[in-house]
Amino acid sequence: MWTDELRTFPFWKAIAAEFLGTGFLVFVGCAAAVSSNPAASVDSFVARVAFTFGLTVATLVWCTAAASGGHINPAVTMAVMVTRKISLLRGAFYIVAQCGGAIAGAGLLSAATSEAINAGPFGCNGFPDYIGAGQAILMEAMITFVLVFTVFATCDDKRKDLQGSGPLAIGIAVLVAHLGMIPLSGSGMNPARSLGPAVIRGGPCWSNHYVYWVGPLVGGVIGGLVYELIFAADAGAAKVRRFFSPTESHTEYRDDERIIG
Amino acid sequence: MWTDELRTFPFWKAIAAEFLGTGFLVFVGCAAAVSSNPAASVDSFVARVAFTFGLTVATLVWCTAAASGGHINPAVTMAVMVTRKISLLRGAFYIVAQCGGAIAGAGLLSAATSEAINAGPFGCNGFPDYIGAGQAILMEAMITFVLVFTVFATCDDKRKDLQGSGPLAIGIAVLVAHLGMIPLSGSGMNPARSLGPAVIRGGPCWSNHYVYWVGPLVGGVIGGLVYELIFAADAGAAKVRRFFSPTESHTEYRDDERIIG
Amino acid sequence: MWTDELRTFPFWKAIAAEFLGTGFLVFVGCAAAVSSNPAASVDSFVARVAFTFGLTVATLVWCTAAASGGHINPAVTMAVMVTRKISLLRGAFYIVAQCGGAIAGAGLLSAATSEAINAGPFGCNGFPDYIGAGQAILMEAMITFVLVFTVFATCDDKRKDLQGSGPLAIGIAVLVAHLGMIPLSGSGMNPARSLGPAVIRGGPCWSNHYVYWVGPLVGGVIGGLVYELIFAADAGAAKVRRFFSPTESHTEYRDDERIIG
Amino acid sequence: MWTDELRTFPFWKAIAAEFLGTGFLVFVGCAAAVSSNPAASVDSFVARVAFTFGLTVATLVWCTAAASGGHINPAVTMAVMVTRKISLLRGAFYIVAQCGGAIAGAGLLSAATSEAINAGPFGCNGFPDYIGAGQAILMEAMITFVLVFTVFATCDDKRKDLQGSGPLAIGIAVLVAHLGMIPLSGSGMNPARSLGPAVIRGGPCWSNHYVYWVGPLVGGVIGGLVYELIFAADAGAAKVRRFFSPTESHTEYRDDERIIG
Repeated sequence: MWTDELRTFPFWKAIAAEFLGTGFLVFVGCAAAVSSNPAASVDSFVARVAFTFGLTVATLVWCTAAASGGHINPAVTMAVMVTRKISLLRGAFYIVAQCGGAIAGAGLLSAATSEAINAGPFGCNGFPDYIGAGQAILMEAMITFVLVFTVFATCDDKRKDLQGSGPLAIGIAVLVAHLGMIPLSGSGMNPARSLGPAVIRGGPCWSNHYVYWVGPLVGGVIGGLVYELIFAADAGAAKVRRFFSPTESHTEYRDDERIIG
Repeated sequence: MWTDELRTFPFWKAIAAEFLGTGFLVFVGCAAAVSSNPAASVDSFVARVAFTFGLTVATLVWCTAAASGGHINPAVTMAVMVTRKISLLRGAFYIVAQCGGAIAGAGLLSAATSEAINAGPFGCNGFPDYIGAGQAILMEAMITFVLVFTVFATCDDKRKDLQGSGPLAIGIAVLVAHLGMIPLSGSGMNPARSLGPAVIRGGPCWSNHYVYWVGPLVGGVIGGLVYELIFAADAGAAKVRRFFSPTESHTEYRDDERIIG
Repeated sequence: MWTDELRTFPFWKAIAAEFLGTGFLVFVGCAAAVSSNPAASVDSFVARVAFTFGLTVATLVWCTAAASGGHINPAVTMAVMVTRKISLLRGAFYIVAQCGGAIAGAGLLSAATSEAINAGPFGCNGFPDYIGAGQAILMEAMITFVLVFTVFATCDDKRKDLQGSGPLAIGIAVLVAHLGMIPLSGSGMNPARSLGPAVIRGGPCWSNHYVYWVGPLVGGVIGGLVYELIFAADAGAAKVRRFFSPTESHTEYRDDERIIG
Repeated sequence: MWTDELRTFPFWKAIAAEFLGTGFLVFVGCAAAVSSNPAASVDSFVARVAFTFGLTVATLVWCTAAASGGHINPAVTMAVMVTRKISLLRGAFYIVAQCGGAIAGAGLLSAATSEAINAGPFGCNGFPDYIGAGQAILMEAMITFVLVFTVFATCDDKRKDLQGSGPLAIGIAVLVAHLGMIPLSGSGMNPARSLGPAVIRGGPCWSNHYVYWVGPLVGGVIGGLVYELIFAADAGAAKVRRFFSPTESHTEYRDDERIIG
């Protein structure tokens, strides 16, 4: 039965990994944001926050890859669901666990710090007045596209040459997007990470919150599809046909040798 | 006899590795702290100190992993002892060597620098007035939980995919916790590292010193147990039973295939 | 026929990879440049921009290595062409795709940001008044020489020991050159990366633009030839002779055992 | 004959690698130093210079490891000579090539920049007034000890688990020592790197120059001996005896199983 996996130990190990991973990401990443001083030096502020979030993602993918695949991000989970690498059921549980973990992580940070910090911006995502919501969505979609593309490229079972470099590569993909984009789009890239501090801090954090769902989910899903159907080791016209009509039978041939036209 | 390992060359090689490793970590990490300028830019200060401690841990794990397992931290050693990966005897010697090395490293830094530096904060761990001791313990426990989880996950003999990434991953786990937490909890994560400069500098460094033992040891031991009993490749109900009653005989079965309920 | 590869799916996958990779490099790298504050702290500014460009190159080589070889830089493509690792036809298409991608990336950044940012320096490459064009060309040639040498050394099929470290090593080669050279030569290292913002921003960006073609192309081609003919696993006098007279027949012998003089 | 290796192609390939590697290290590392602003933020200044030197070492070890072993530092070469891994002849040529390369690199930087930069501190190593020469030598010896220990540990043929991590680990060992020590000892760690700018700039750069030979050479040689005789996979009493009386015959036994006392 399609719900059978709910009764296995590894399924709940995976859910726990996604909850703990996203929770710690929000806890330590937002801790950097709430204890920084953007006014003193925008470049030092951005560098510190970007390295914290980016390399925390690397650390947590090293920790959780074996248990859950190490998504800790609904945009990654959506891309993995759409490309049929995990079931819709598992994907739905992952996203709920990620959002719950992120809220718990932000709540723990709130409990561990002071009134003054709790009343500040609290690591919520936002963008400056001179950027429009559409522009922010475009930027969020582009950087999440590259993040998901990196996840797929370094975890492609058919590419042995990158064996083991996945966690660091994925963390660096987050790091560079944050380094470039924090002052422009806010660089959410992860709807759960944006949700956690918004739920705990409330008020101004909900302003434009939808940007951090629409941009990453759209960019991430496109990134996953583009990798699978065009760039994967076994990509090509045959894979595209199988993707869009999975129940039909298809004659197999090697795309490498195919001549167009 | 249970003390036989005391008479072997590799045992004392391991003790020397732990002494040298923890000593150099304190020497170079505290050198960054005593020669910095937190008032000029908190983010630059935190970044410099965090990279120094975090990547020095990586360097020293590369250096000592083969000789001792590369703990250089009593919280790691406690977690490894509690999960019965090393003997209590070896663990006790490791912790003594780590504390001795840390004091020696801080003493050498004191000897190598000036009166003014010796009278300053000298790289001791501490937290700001607006954080309570209980809050600091919570934060220290959480970041040490993730550090120990990373150690266990990247050194799990049953996971070949991460082969060789342990030292860098462990260093990055320390780095990101420091990047996020230095201004909030002080980010000790390692009781020996906190002890060294406290012994040499004395005075104000002993204030709240217990926080840097309680938080890391509790968080580290929980991290080790959670990994071993829930997240390890062979984790599951059978392993939990064996852990709590090691002398009973247990029917073996594969957890992967077990159906709950 | 020599144009047959134009009709294969992998050829166009490679072209798409070069277009997307160079486009994203310019988009996120220039985003860091346009949102920074060099006046506040030259060292923080240089570090942020250098890490963004350098580690974005690492990310994109992880993403595109399998599809195209991950050049995303006409200087790399020229070196690969001159050493006859890819055809002139493929090389020409790569360079066109890189330049087109870079212009598209800069255009998207322009569309995603504000009038004020569009009127600023926009991430264009340049050098200070006290440096001459010849000096800048020399510096650009030297750093691109090392970049291409790193590409060749870490992707040498005959050296298995560095398997998998190519993307990170290549990104770090860009990072360190930027860390050292941004305030001196501008640290272009990549004619397409220099072209993109120049086309979109125009005006002052075209000043001395040729420096960022001459320096990187000359340095990159020399780097590729020096590696292939002197430093490659199979380098030596026999390889040099084969390179300069590829149609003659040569007696093969192992250079390792050759005695000079 | 003991000079036979002078007539082989690989020997001169190795010499060229050491010359080019040390030259580029000085060129790009000192470029960071001469274009920085230590007065604005000591932590940003130290971080930028430390990352430049440290990760340039990583890059150049990736580039030159196959040709020469990637020493690019007389302290490493001395340690490798003393532990009899290369001949005295080869070691002497390496050190000459490293010093020549460093002078050439500093000379090129001088030629590529301005009068004002040429009249500045030019990246020479030095230490503040409140540190004595003996204290600086102690610090230089300690950090070079760890650098050489890292080189030996990650290049130990008998340890396959660290395969391929050598270049990055060695670069990080330099990086962390620079991050901690630049404001205290100057963090030379490499006599050739200290010599290059001193020869070109002259004058004040020669003050205390001997510190950057004595500290690194003593620390490096001790580091190499300690690793080889105590920490190497095959270390132990038997190896120590063979080291001090290489011509005697020794009964072989496995140190792992030896009981002391």
